[in-house]
Amino acid sequence: MQRDRPKIHFATSNVNKFLEAQSILAEYGVQLVQVGHKGVEIQSGSVEEVARESARSAASKAGVATLVEDAGLFVDALRGFPGAYSSFVHATLGCDGVLKLLNGISDRKARFVSAVAFCEPEGQPKCFPGVVEGTIAREARGKSGFGFDPIFLADGAGDRTFGEMQTNEKNKYSHRAKAFREFVRWFVGTIKP
Amino acid sequence: MQRDRPKIHFATSNVNKFLEAQSILAEYGVQLVQVGHKGVEIQSGSVEEVARESARSAASKAGVATLVEDAGLFVDALRGFPGAYSSFVHATLGCDGVLKLLNGISDRKARFVSAVAFCEPEGQPKCFPGVVEGTIAREARGKSGFGFDPIFLADGAGDRTFGEMQTNEKNKYSHRAKAFREFVRWFVGTIKP
Repeated sequence: MQRDRPKIHFATSNVNKFLEAQSILAEYGVQLVQVGHKGVEIQSGSVEEVARESARSAASKAGVATLVEDAGLFVDALRGFPGAYSSFVHATLGCDGVLKLLNGISDRKARFVSAVAFCEPEGQPKCFPGVVEGTIAREARGKSGFGFDPIFLADGAGDRTFGEMQTNEKNKYSHRAKAFREFVRWFVGTIKP
Repeated sequence: MQRDRPKIHFATSNVNKFLEAQSILAEYGVQLVQVGHKGVEIQSGSVEEVARESARSAASKAGVATLVEDAGLFVDALRGFPGAYSSFVHATLGCDGVLKLLNGISDRKARFVSAVAFCEPEGQPKCFPGVVEGTIAREARGKSGFGFDPIFLADGAGDRTFGEMQTNEKNKYSHRAKAFREFVRWFVGTIKP
């Protein structure tokens, strides 16, 4: 008899995020199901805190164990802006806004931070962080990925932005891939044979 | 026998905000008490939604009727940025960041929006909005007020920014003063003689 692959509910409205996570979890034989309601997102400077509270509220509402991911771009010369508010800043200012803010500034250091939170209904969320260090490019390049990918150059990945990489290549470096790998290794270890 | 002035708990960690509100409410004989815990702030594009939820959670935690105010600067040419995230954006980019984003842009239209929410423990929040239309100045001027006051020119208030006005003058025009006046007129009407 064939055993079913384990399935996890991933609460996100972002299909690109879902596809990146799905590709990682597939490596471990875990199936991801996209569900729309990602829970209440609180205002906080920490993506980890946002992910935890969101997972707690999504799991409580859905009544099943739920996975949530929150991420942000933290630019050193901008004191961590746009940080946990990256989605809003991308929707309003776009990549061009961040480039304009860095006009004439030589320190381009930045990092993408991801936090994957897993929560059982009425349980405490368990959180898995992932970070990729890098720099902000001089101009936006590439149409892959989403958000600030076209202006992010990961350390060690050469002169191509995340926006110029396909999912499987981006997953070698990305914050999100690191966080989901941490999660899935823990999760697979919890499954009884 | 002298009757006590009615007292309301205002949950804010911002002393400037407290002083502005106190000065309005004093006109109506209502006393304001500053309390620190302003409740959980959710991520939302709407200051009204942020204020409602924050008032609900602050009142529930404190066990007494609580007032909360949330406000934001909405710049047309920046698609409403920084909006409900104005505190974070002010802390990271400051007034200079907004001025840099508007470099070379002729449309300087903007508005400050305030939402005052009042909630009884376990009750539904009642919300009072206030708006002031204006433009973003070419440079920051003045040390009064807080946040983006030094770059905001209210329509009809001449060429002086909110940062160049004392509280009583700013209160003639400001979004916050309008919202608190709406609130206190309602509140005074609810007090039994």
